[in-house]
Amino acid sequence: MKPIPAIPRILLGPGPSLVSPRVMRALATPVLGHLDPQLLSTMDDVRDALRRIFRAPDGSTALAVSGTGTAAMETCLANLVEPGTRMVVVTNGYFGERLAEIGQRFGAQVHRVAGEWGRAIDPTAVANAITSNSPQLVAVVHAETSTGVVNPVEAIAAAARAKDALVLVDAVTSLGGMPVDVAAWGIDACYSGSQKCLGAPSGIAPLVFTPRAWARRVACRSFYFDLGLLDAYWRERKYHHTIAATLVYALAEALAEVEDEGLEQRWERHRRHHESFTSELAALRLTLLPPEAEQLWTLHTVVVPDGIDEAAVRRDLREQYNIEIGAGMGPLAGRVWRIGLMGASSTPSAIATLVSALSTLIRR
Amino acid sequence: MKPIPAIPRILLGPGPSLVSPRVMRALATPVLGHLDPQLLSTMDDVRDALRRIFRAPDGSTALAVSGTGTAAMETCLANLVEPGTRMVVVTNGYFGERLAEIGQRFGAQVHRVAGEWGRAIDPTAVANAITSNSPQLVAVVHAETSTGVVNPVEAIAAAARAKDALVLVDAVTSLGGMPVDVAAWGIDACYSGSQKCLGAPSGIAPLVFTPRAWARRVACRSFYFDLGLLDAYWRERKYHHTIAATLVYALAEALAEVEDEGLEQRWERHRRHHESFTSELAALRLTLLPPEAEQLWTLHTVVVPDGIDEAAVRRDLREQYNIEIGAGMGPLAGRVWRIGLMGASSTPSAIATLVSALSTLIRR
Repeated sequence: MKPIPAIPRILLGPGPSLVSPRVMRALATPVLGHLDPQLLSTMDDVRDALRRIFRAPDGSTALAVSGTGTAAMETCLANLVEPGTRMVVVTNGYFGERLAEIGQRFGAQVHRVAGEWGRAIDPTAVANAITSNSPQLVAVVHAETSTGVVNPVEAIAAAARAKDALVLVDAVTSLGGMPVDVAAWGIDACYSGSQKCLGAPSGIAPLVFTPRAWARRVACRSFYFDLGLLDAYWRERKYHHTIAATLVYALAEALAEVEDEGLEQRWERHRRHHESFTSELAALRLTLLPPEAEQLWTLHTVVVPDGIDEAAVRRDLREQYNIEIGAGMGPLAGRVWRIGLMGASSTPSAIATLVSALSTLIRR
Repeated sequence: MKPIPAIPRILLGPGPSLVSPRVMRALATPVLGHLDPQLLSTMDDVRDALRRIFRAPDGSTALAVSGTGTAAMETCLANLVEPGTRMVVVTNGYFGERLAEIGQRFGAQVHRVAGEWGRAIDPTAVANAITSNSPQLVAVVHAETSTGVVNPVEAIAAAARAKDALVLVDAVTSLGGMPVDVAAWGIDACYSGSQKCLGAPSGIAPLVFTPRAWARRVACRSFYFDLGLLDAYWRERKYHHTIAATLVYALAEALAEVEDEGLEQRWERHRRHHESFTSELAALRLTLLPPEAEQLWTLHTVVVPDGIDEAAVRRDLREQYNIEIGAGMGPLAGRVWRIGLMGASSTPSAIATLVSALSTLIRR
């Protein structure tokens, strides 16, 4: 076997983001067993921190699934959807479509509210779909990683709650980088990933269920994703699986780093760097796909100018400058670059390096 | 939040096992993106090494699921079981029962061949169940972590293949520590964990499907565990989830360490330390639960002597000696200690420390 790669890649794609030295050190701490009191005590701290960072209401269940953000998405759906469940899903991007697909795999009657990739969904369209479909579950991606768009979660949640539907929100690319407020927005279940704005490696994915969502769980077919079993492990120490201590450490340290910075200060940092990056792009005559009011602070879909070989720019950024950015997905393939400024990757130096390199490459 | 624990626990429970310094260093290597060519190249090496270490036949699909051994178990079942699938499962321990439970959750008609916890299953009983149930799938745990017993996989596989059933084998506590030979034994699908005899942290779980198992996959309901999608990611670089680069590094380095030691030499090391540990136990008048011919080399169920407070011994080992051992499960709760000598934990010094500490604690 070849040696494993040891490359200080500047991670400015759609995630994973850079991991801070503090979190890397935590990751490399000696392993403890999955039932070790010391590890379980750290897991208690993780639960408490997640409740604060999600801004979840009292009595919410918080934990992290032993998998990636997609595992958390599937966990939420596996515990809220059974055959016949009526579900309204906002599909104005790849991850909204993934929510719909998993819902369908689990037997839901999925009604899609489709929207243009690159635009926020119209909350009135969602409200109308809720009225006409009487769904038990409304699912929406807050920060659509495929398009760089923020969807109007609060308005959608209000419409859903008015019809007594549960609200499931994907906050993979927003939690820790821009405002997410489960309690104030009336969200019932919400999940994220570790490797975006929270600043840990991937492989452990946080979620919260409010008491309202918890009470409406369905019989879960999956064993690995069964929230009742996961909660019994996290809270009552009943063996379910061998959680990765190293990832628990990394997540715990990353959450501590979020709270040391201050959650709102961290949002503000992401906003500030989004604005400076956007104006630097403008100086290069580069624009973002979504209109200004619909742009994420965390993930930027930059329109590839005519005459530029987008794949060559990504390759040269990687090979010459050691910078990773992402390609467009689906209908945006070849049309945009996806540039993440999340967690430890949201810094003036990362922006300076990228803008300078981009400037050289697109002028060539 | 409290600081994360940094405790050099000597991990001699049922897993996780100790992680070598070499693998820990790999774990803490800077993160690469899940589509980075350098990471994908390491994943190619992992696939090749897994095929060799599982001794899988040509054309087998090998990859690692982004989850724990239970995730790999669920992946195998999610892709081999659909409602109505007839399944014979050996249940002479907790993990055999888990296979049966997940099979049932997925709609299989499960016929259990139950056996005493602490004894190997009688292959004739399994063969009879195969004859009378005509299963499409026969599932058995090779090394039963709950009982310390090795089941006669080769004989069971022969009986299953004679009736054209697929054979699914759990090698979580054997792969890398005692002989596993997918090709020679006629196994069709086999999975393991990273944190036992392979010597990596948990969170990434290897599996192989032979061409015969691959051809008989069913429509997978899960998205996260869909082997078609996982294979498309591992082989064709089609995005599916954000794999944990850090865990890929650790697994790759652990597999390289296995092959540097030599697979058969590694088996022999585990056998030798099993024998020396067992004779040291005998000197303390401690015995293993299974008869000698049915004992694992990797995981030892030590019968708790009359008059000994088993939980107090475990606690004192942990608090006074910094040693983790495991408790009994199910019908063996309170009756045995589970002591793993796996991977980097299978060393003379670990045995010496444990035996000396145990000797003190049980004489008190």
